[in-house]
Amino acid sequence: MRTLKEILKAIGLGDLDVPEMLVRGPAKLSEATNQDLSFLANMKYENELYSTNAGAVLIPFDFQPAQEVSAHLIRVDDPHTAIAKVLELYSKVERNYGVHQQALIEQNVQLGEHIYVGPFTYIDEHASIGDYTTIAAQVYIGKNVSIGRNCDLHAGVKIYNNCVIGDNCIIHSGTVIGADGFGFVPQKDGSYNKVPQTGNVVIKNNVEIGSNCTIDRATMGSTLIGNGVKLDNLIQVGHNAEIGDNTVVAAQSGISGSTKLGEGCMIGGQVGFVGHITIAPFTMINAKSGISKSVQQPGSKLNGIPAFSFNDSLRSQSIYRKLPELQKRLSEIEEILSLHRK
Amino acid sequence: MRTLKEILKAIGLGDLDVPEMLVRGPAKLSEATNQDLSFLANMKYENELYSTNAGAVLIPFDFQPAQEVSAHLIRVDDPHTAIAKVLELYSKVERNYGVHQQALIEQNVQLGEHIYVGPFTYIDEHASIGDYTTIAAQVYIGKNVSIGRNCDLHAGVKIYNNCVIGDNCIIHSGTVIGADGFGFVPQKDGSYNKVPQTGNVVIKNNVEIGSNCTIDRATMGSTLIGNGVKLDNLIQVGHNAEIGDNTVVAAQSGISGSTKLGEGCMIGGQVGFVGHITIAPFTMINAKSGISKSVQQPGSKLNGIPAFSFNDSLRSQSIYRKLPELQKRLSEIEEILSLHRK
Amino acid sequence: MRTLKEILKAIGLGDLDVPEMLVRGPAKLSEATNQDLSFLANMKYENELYSTNAGAVLIPFDFQPAQEVSAHLIRVDDPHTAIAKVLELYSKVERNYGVHQQALIEQNVQLGEHIYVGPFTYIDEHASIGDYTTIAAQVYIGKNVSIGRNCDLHAGVKIYNNCVIGDNCIIHSGTVIGADGFGFVPQKDGSYNKVPQTGNVVIKNNVEIGSNCTIDRATMGSTLIGNGVKLDNLIQVGHNAEIGDNTVVAAQSGISGSTKLGEGCMIGGQVGFVGHITIAPFTMINAKSGISKSVQQPGSKLNGIPAFSFNDSLRSQSIYRKLPELQKRLSEIEEILSLHRK
Repeated sequence: MRTLKEILKAIGLGDLDVPEMLVRGPAKLSEATNQDLSFLANMKYENELYSTNAGAVLIPFDFQPAQEVSAHLIRVDDPHTAIAKVLELYSKVERNYGVHQQALIEQNVQLGEHIYVGPFTYIDEHASIGDYTTIAAQVYIGKNVSIGRNCDLHAGVKIYNNCVIGDNCIIHSGTVIGADGFGFVPQKDGSYNKVPQTGNVVIKNNVEIGSNCTIDRATMGSTLIGNGVKLDNLIQVGHNAEIGDNTVVAAQSGISGSTKLGEGCMIGGQVGFVGHITIAPFTMINAKSGISKSVQQPGSKLNGIPAFSFNDSLRSQSIYRKLPELQKRLSEIEEILSLHRK
Repeated sequence: MRTLKEILKAIGLGDLDVPEMLVRGPAKLSEATNQDLSFLANMKYENELYSTNAGAVLIPFDFQPAQEVSAHLIRVDDPHTAIAKVLELYSKVERNYGVHQQALIEQNVQLGEHIYVGPFTYIDEHASIGDYTTIAAQVYIGKNVSIGRNCDLHAGVKIYNNCVIGDNCIIHSGTVIGADGFGFVPQKDGSYNKVPQTGNVVIKNNVEIGSNCTIDRATMGSTLIGNGVKLDNLIQVGHNAEIGDNTVVAAQSGISGSTKLGEGCMIGGQVGFVGHITIAPFTMINAKSGISKSVQQPGSKLNGIPAFSFNDSLRSQSIYRKLPELQKRLSEIEEILSLHRK
Repeated sequence: MRTLKEILKAIGLGDLDVPEMLVRGPAKLSEATNQDLSFLANMKYENELYSTNAGAVLIPFDFQPAQEVSAHLIRVDDPHTAIAKVLELYSKVERNYGVHQQALIEQNVQLGEHIYVGPFTYIDEHASIGDYTTIAAQVYIGKNVSIGRNCDLHAGVKIYNNCVIGDNCIIHSGTVIGADGFGFVPQKDGSYNKVPQTGNVVIKNNVEIGSNCTIDRATMGSTLIGNGVKLDNLIQVGHNAEIGDNTVVAAQSGISGSTKLGEGCMIGGQVGFVGHITIAPFTMINAKSGISKSVQQPGSKLNGIPAFSFNDSLRSQSIYRKLPELQKRLSEIEEILSLHRK
């Protein structure tokens, strides 16, 4: 166990004056004991502050508790950032090194230093793996795939041939990178001919991709995932789509073929984009929206199926609920005016 | 083949008086031969009763056929339950035992009695597997994972370290348990820093989870799946979410981080829940709904994006379709009142 | 490199009169060099034609450029079909043969000629694999599975026992065929009993299925995927569902149990179908729609949640956005008529 003082010092808050206290680790307000360090960042949980058993709690600098709090309060600029650093401190780095003897690596594969390759993983010819990269069990790396430094590929990731992944990327289990895009040419007899998908997927640096996502290779050229992009789970990215730097996408959203998202966008869960459109940088899209045309204005906030301005959509939503009442008012007016409706 | 009498006896209906008949097995009305036992539970299929070739059909106790039926009719309280028991009877229990020599089990793993571990499966250190549990091929079991008795993990399931699974659970292929939750802290330069996800996933007893689901580990503490929960395919469960006992969720629904579903809820397909809300027990949510706030009232029925009362939503839906007519009526009134609109 | 003349001849356009030119390969307008052959099929990209560096461009027969074009223009009936053939020509067939020594094949498996089976793939008893079929690494093939000729199963595909796959099928990574359908019988104590799923999945010929799809086995009988069906990624097909010949379904759509789609349907992304309905042939459904009842009329076009006629739905959508204005107009009328509302 470390003292509270040591922890704060380790996360860059060494000048704070705190009581002597041993800390077992970070914990949520509702679960913390008096040996735990907790935090309050989202004010939805303010009430938990008043009943928590935590020994100490990180709170926003300007927050004034409305009731008495038993925990020692530590005021910081951003409790989210501070607790993240505490978690980092406590997340044990339990890392394996070496190529497991039950991994299978074909000829002409270039392996960096200090890598790990787990059992039942298969790396095909002419692939290259950068230094410090960890590849867990049961991963498939196709021919000519290039993976950068310090990446973390979890169990069962599948990467088709010719795809390129940058440095410091994390890819979670079950995600498939570089499968064929969905391209077919209709024939006169009603059947479809496959359009060969000869491009690849290029993923830049510092990207994290969740579990069971599917990112298709381009028909020609590359499907592109920019620097710092964060994708949640079960996300579909179609062929030739592009996602700009630092854009984040929540779970179960889908980006159709050839659509381009600008940088810094925030996309909610279960959102869908049609193909061949362009989304301006810093666009924010509410969960479950359907985006049917390009967004020109950077920083737009959109909602709905099809989506339009977020604020306007809230107004329409609100009246939608009152449609029965509106209809009734209309009928009353018609009665007054002696207009007869069936 | 068994006689019809034997089958009914085996499923607890031995006192029914039925003709001598050999039964090949259970079959749907439309596909049954005169050696098959079929059933009518959903009245949508009533017409198939009148044309079926089935030798015998399980029907509801109080059902009166509107036409002649060639099959022998067997009246039971609940044909669904009865046919399920027949299926049980006929589902051959073809079970392997032992640890396959091409499975790889690290040191300090605790293996129960009568288990099966398939080829290319990897079980990491300090995991434990309960008695009678079956783990198919190509499964990944991380460090310190605990799996209870009589579970069935299908090919390719991935379970990250420290997760806990109870007894009598079934997990289908491709499902990922315990990948990192989607947590990031925005930085001033527009990039995001990862929040380490140090918690786990706890799955209680008698849970069934379909294929290619993703259940993320908690940031701190546990993501929790209650006793008897049934999840369909391609379902997302975010970090620190909780699902109450006996709640069922249909395919492609998503539950965002820290949201808590009560017990006995029924959730349709492609439903989405925002994060940090609480859903009362026995809530029923229609397919494709978006749940944007907490539900207080147990037994609520909801529909829509965002969702509101099911019955009210049907009224709004119905008027939504007539909006062009409403607009026209409004314009006519304005004309009568000599209000000029562009 | 081939000459342009050679390429056109190889794709059946040998009688066109073109200049002498060496072609490196196919490329998109925006990325092509003067040694590349490009195409213009979607008029959204017309502007790229005027700035492209491509040496030659396939264009529709009747297209008249509005500006000068530096590339040589080649007029064809259907640029999409033509470029697909060029891609075919250039997609290197890099195929492995033989059973990898780290594949594991149980007894009584029937293997065709000229097949490939990759490392860490497991094929269980009594399965059969047709001639020229390629099975990549880490695939699971259950007992009694039958796979036809000339199929391509990518890394990590999982096929449960007794399923049947026809000829010329492509199945991408992570897809799960034949997991249990979602069938439970509610008990009086609020829990659910599993209905054994004893049927299978039957996939006909020339089917392509994307990544991480889930196609459940039937309770009894078969879940059926017709000839020439094309499924994108992350698609759910419930137990006993049927998809007619040449129907295409875009990513993240879900078809609930026992629902039957006719032939030649086109289903957008993120569409949901409730269970036990029938969809007429050639139905077209817009992305994100929810289909709550059967569609009788072949060739119907539908949109919305729940879906109705596509054209009508566009009208309602358009007025939905103007609901605040409509409400205001209504209030004005009430004021004129001295009707007082709160």
